[in-house]
Amino acid sequence: MNKITIGVVGAGRIGKLHTDNLIRMPAVDVKMIADPFIDEGWATSRGLNFSKDPEAVFGNPEINAVLILSPSPMHADHMIKAARAGKHIFCEKPIALDPAKIRQALDEVEKAGVKLQVGFNRRFDPNFRKVKEQVEAGAVGDVYYVRITARDPSPPPRDYIRDSGGMFLDMTIHDFDMVRYLTSSEVEEVYAAGAVLVDKAFEEAGDVDTAITTIRLKNGTLAVIDNSRQAVYGYDQRIEVFGSRGSISAANEVHTTTVLMTNEGVRSEKPLDFFLDRYQASFRAELEEFITAIERDTEPPVGGMDGLKPILIGLAAKKSLVEGRLVKVDES
Amino acid sequence: MNKITIGVVGAGRIGKLHTDNLIRMPAVDVKMIADPFIDEGWATSRGLNFSKDPEAVFGNPEINAVLILSPSPMHADHMIKAARAGKHIFCEKPIALDPAKIRQALDEVEKAGVKLQVGFNRRFDPNFRKVKEQVEAGAVGDVYYVRITARDPSPPPRDYIRDSGGMFLDMTIHDFDMVRYLTSSEVEEVYAAGAVLVDKAFEEAGDVDTAITTIRLKNGTLAVIDNSRQAVYGYDQRIEVFGSRGSISAANEVHTTTVLMTNEGVRSEKPLDFFLDRYQASFRAELEEFITAIERDTEPPVGGMDGLKPILIGLAAKKSLVEGRLVKVDES
Amino acid sequence: MNKITIGVVGAGRIGKLHTDNLIRMPAVDVKMIADPFIDEGWATSRGLNFSKDPEAVFGNPEINAVLILSPSPMHADHMIKAARAGKHIFCEKPIALDPAKIRQALDEVEKAGVKLQVGFNRRFDPNFRKVKEQVEAGAVGDVYYVRITARDPSPPPRDYIRDSGGMFLDMTIHDFDMVRYLTSSEVEEVYAAGAVLVDKAFEEAGDVDTAITTIRLKNGTLAVIDNSRQAVYGYDQRIEVFGSRGSISAANEVHTTTVLMTNEGVRSEKPLDFFLDRYQASFRAELEEFITAIERDTEPPVGGMDGLKPILIGLAAKKSLVEGRLVKVDES
Amino acid sequence: MNKITIGVVGAGRIGKLHTDNLIRMPAVDVKMIADPFIDEGWATSRGLNFSKDPEAVFGNPEINAVLILSPSPMHADHMIKAARAGKHIFCEKPIALDPAKIRQALDEVEKAGVKLQVGFNRRFDPNFRKVKEQVEAGAVGDVYYVRITARDPSPPPRDYIRDSGGMFLDMTIHDFDMVRYLTSSEVEEVYAAGAVLVDKAFEEAGDVDTAITTIRLKNGTLAVIDNSRQAVYGYDQRIEVFGSRGSISAANEVHTTTVLMTNEGVRSEKPLDFFLDRYQASFRAELEEFITAIERDTEPPVGGMDGLKPILIGLAAKKSLVEGRLVKVDES
Repeated sequence: MNKITIGVVGAGRIGKLHTDNLIRMPAVDVKMIADPFIDEGWATSRGLNFSKDPEAVFGNPEINAVLILSPSPMHADHMIKAARAGKHIFCEKPIALDPAKIRQALDEVEKAGVKLQVGFNRRFDPNFRKVKEQVEAGAVGDVYYVRITARDPSPPPRDYIRDSGGMFLDMTIHDFDMVRYLTSSEVEEVYAAGAVLVDKAFEEAGDVDTAITTIRLKNGTLAVIDNSRQAVYGYDQRIEVFGSRGSISAANEVHTTTVLMTNEGVRSEKPLDFFLDRYQASFRAELEEFITAIERDTEPPVGGMDGLKPILIGLAAKKSLVEGRLVKVDES
Repeated sequence: MNKITIGVVGAGRIGKLHTDNLIRMPAVDVKMIADPFIDEGWATSRGLNFSKDPEAVFGNPEINAVLILSPSPMHADHMIKAARAGKHIFCEKPIALDPAKIRQALDEVEKAGVKLQVGFNRRFDPNFRKVKEQVEAGAVGDVYYVRITARDPSPPPRDYIRDSGGMFLDMTIHDFDMVRYLTSSEVEEVYAAGAVLVDKAFEEAGDVDTAITTIRLKNGTLAVIDNSRQAVYGYDQRIEVFGSRGSISAANEVHTTTVLMTNEGVRSEKPLDFFLDRYQASFRAELEEFITAIERDTEPPVGGMDGLKPILIGLAAKKSLVEGRLVKVDES
Repeated sequence: MNKITIGVVGAGRIGKLHTDNLIRMPAVDVKMIADPFIDEGWATSRGLNFSKDPEAVFGNPEINAVLILSPSPMHADHMIKAARAGKHIFCEKPIALDPAKIRQALDEVEKAGVKLQVGFNRRFDPNFRKVKEQVEAGAVGDVYYVRITARDPSPPPRDYIRDSGGMFLDMTIHDFDMVRYLTSSEVEEVYAAGAVLVDKAFEEAGDVDTAITTIRLKNGTLAVIDNSRQAVYGYDQRIEVFGSRGSISAANEVHTTTVLMTNEGVRSEKPLDFFLDRYQASFRAELEEFITAIERDTEPPVGGMDGLKPILIGLAAKKSLVEGRLVKVDES
Repeated sequence: MNKITIGVVGAGRIGKLHTDNLIRMPAVDVKMIADPFIDEGWATSRGLNFSKDPEAVFGNPEINAVLILSPSPMHADHMIKAARAGKHIFCEKPIALDPAKIRQALDEVEKAGVKLQVGFNRRFDPNFRKVKEQVEAGAVGDVYYVRITARDPSPPPRDYIRDSGGMFLDMTIHDFDMVRYLTSSEVEEVYAAGAVLVDKAFEEAGDVDTAITTIRLKNGTLAVIDNSRQAVYGYDQRIEVFGSRGSISAANEVHTTTVLMTNEGVRSEKPLDFFLDRYQASFRAELEEFITAIERDTEPPVGGMDGLKPILIGLAAKKSLVEGRLVKVDES
């Protein structure tokens, strides 16, 4: 069988992660990685061809598929270039913060007839996937509501905050995707309550660091997401789906199962505190499924609309926060 | 030391429970219990004086304090009678569903100078009390938000639904009280999302059976309450307080700590499924503190304002649900 | 229905506990409590008739049944007196440390035709009872082995150690009973490994403070008990029954279900650290079943042989420890 | 830096596992793998040089170190050949079942001055390693006893049983190593109780399928190991170290953290049921440390004596079982 030939655009932290995962896949041949600031030592140690110019990837006729792992503001343009070059695309989220820009990129993908997968990796986390499977299997019956807790271990740097699009487009976007994934329904309306309780830097950036977002889905079920930019005890990522036949929940993952009991109390491990640790299995799995979709010529598991919808929900949440009212996603 | 002499008005399920708890307190002498439908066999087996007429309690000069455990619509009138008779009062929640009625009753209590404790028993649950103590001790730092899950094991009878005042005044009222208790702050505004997903009977009664209520407190912290009238796996009562130094949560209680592992999975006990089991320690403790407040002439731990405020929040939540908007509690 | 009339012999810690439980039982009338060192204030506050002379109980014709809660060395003699007086007997464990003495007492009980229940309260603990029920129901299939952990929170006083009969007769005796209860089989042979690791006082008393006891039952299954006189984190009481279809275990009980997560770790409650707290439900339940056995004229759930057998096993364990070899219970 | 060049002898299940792990290590170059029954497709897909003759590895001057992953009866001979060829050695456990044979092989290793690491992988499991670290750090104070539970999910094939050396040399050997590792002490004496409760095939082979082994260490602490050849709910691997300041335990690992609550109960995941899943991190880590020991010219973490001692303990346990008595390890 011929290997799938891959070009990677972007070799920052997430670029290296995905590339290291690709290298270990027998069905894959990484032809080139491009980044203006490429870490040459890293690339050389992996025996990778590299370039400082992304065009070297888009223009390479040997490459079947491109991973777009460049900085977020470039995603849409890189997608368009890859599509026009007839390459299948895996693109990190978000495609763009502007829905018009996303739609333009998706149009190009459609015109080119290439495959597109968007990097909502959490769908591939074994815990959340088990929740999804059980929900699909009817284990909790009709879903009444979904509860998501997503708290970062610590706030991002000030510069990052400014360009992040705000909590709802940067952080809650994953949770919006998860709500859609778990309920198989679309979001009708959103109410977002937020506050600056962690760090004034968020206020200066016109952002919040704490939020509780309530969602009504088109199928009538509800969802609620609580977010914080700082949980000092680790990266807190929990989900519960509650319905007519019961409830299924996914708890945090820990480094070890050890428990220490002393006269001071019973102590167990904190949640994993780094997203690359917490979600490492999901990063591998999403790429494997992308490769499989190319091999078998099937639909990738997270498509273009899955890239657009969470942005629309995030914009509605932003508007809800600013205007202090319930906002329909269709308003945006 | 003289015993505190008690009269009980109302001998239904909760009346019997409280009375059985009183009988076991060495410092208490239950002088009389009154209920038009008194279970005479039960009263006789306890050696209790009983009457079908509540006036026999209010008019009894030997009685120091009255427990008002009559049907909710009579609470306020019975409080007024007890106050005018100069008796200390323990009154089950709610005092009334109409704030004007509550204020009238509280005025009479104040005029009479008697003590009043309102039956928000969950404040006395050992789990939630530990949460409160830890929050007070600064264990979680500044509170970012409070999360409460409160799900009944099964919906009440249709007749009950009609007269209950609706989910927010009947069920969430406990959670509103808990939010005030845990944050030591007052509720500024409420947004309630609700749905009828369990039983159409709620719709017919103009009520909901599923709700997610978001709260902003005057001190800036947030709270979110998720309620359901039906959790088939038991009575689901959980709390989490999350803040700058961490998080403290209280999980459900179970009958036994046993775990069965077979080839079908790992099975542990369901949450206790009856509120009298789940909260039995709290029912005892609230009465003990009421008696202590009388003995030592101190303020009871849950006062008149604590009886009024959750009703105001509940009415704001109802309005929020109907009008689909954020409602300030002061509007009501 | 006539009440069961009870006399209590012994009003120390356990005497007070049982008596306070008896007082709350509607079917019981406590006629008298006797103890040479009776706490008169305590007895008066309960409205109890009391005496300093146990004969006042044995000789009282109004008394149906006697609770023997006197110091252990008196148990057998008090049993004999009660039996000769024709009274049903509830006797705290151990009946005696000398099997001949136990047999003599049991003979008198049999001759008198009165009922006897021995105070192996742990059989009535809701957790362990659930384990037993599940084992009986076949949930774990054929039992391969039973594992019991029993660790005291702290060593007893030096004086107590000297007269205790040693770890196996004082502490492990409960576990020997539990093994018999859970397996419904008798102990064939015992191997005990012990050490003095906690406190030299045990060595001076010819005793150990740490022990691991392996048991083979007549039905072929195995059991292992690990004991310690000191678990600084609390009173550690766990059981696991493992078999062909799986495993059932009972974990420790805690004061609250709260969990605190901070940057220092995840902290939950220690096990309850006082046996009267840990086993309070079992102390109530064993008396209720004793009363029921009298009312219905049925066999009490823990009989005379149940009082003798654990002593025989304990003596075999002692011999095993001293002689460093496997000992058959029938040797003793 | 020059890569460490490796030859692998044995390409069965464990051979493939280790080789796949080696391939991913940047510091390693796998020069050749040899097995008379080599899976050529597998080797080719990895781009590996392979041979059917182990001598091709031992005789290859380009190879620095050899992994001996051949069938157990060949381990010692292969070690001797590798040592004589001057190659560092990683050898799967057991080196041999006969101590004389082991000593002979260790002599050759010593004479050759090559490094030797024995494959007691469980020392490298993150959970058990955390236990070890905490014990070393004094978290539980002076160790009173160690408790190990090790139960296989299902019995091995009949043929395997016959040649396995019996439970103590095949299965408990890992636990003997763990006791030595966790206590940093040597085993003084052993008492083993065993039974055939799972499958008569063990009886026919003169073996047991269920065992409880009690150990006294030279430093005075105790240990107890409970083993079974069949735990239908999964691969049950737990450890507890209990001491003067408390207890630390490691629980089983699971596939996901999900919990399903329905009216039938609360269900969580079974333990991982395959040893390659359960211990995958440990298999990687032991090889990494072997490679590091070569690179830095340090002692490998599990040496020759660590390969011999558990066999001596296992033989003592066998003798204890057969003779029904306590056996000193030095007797063997």
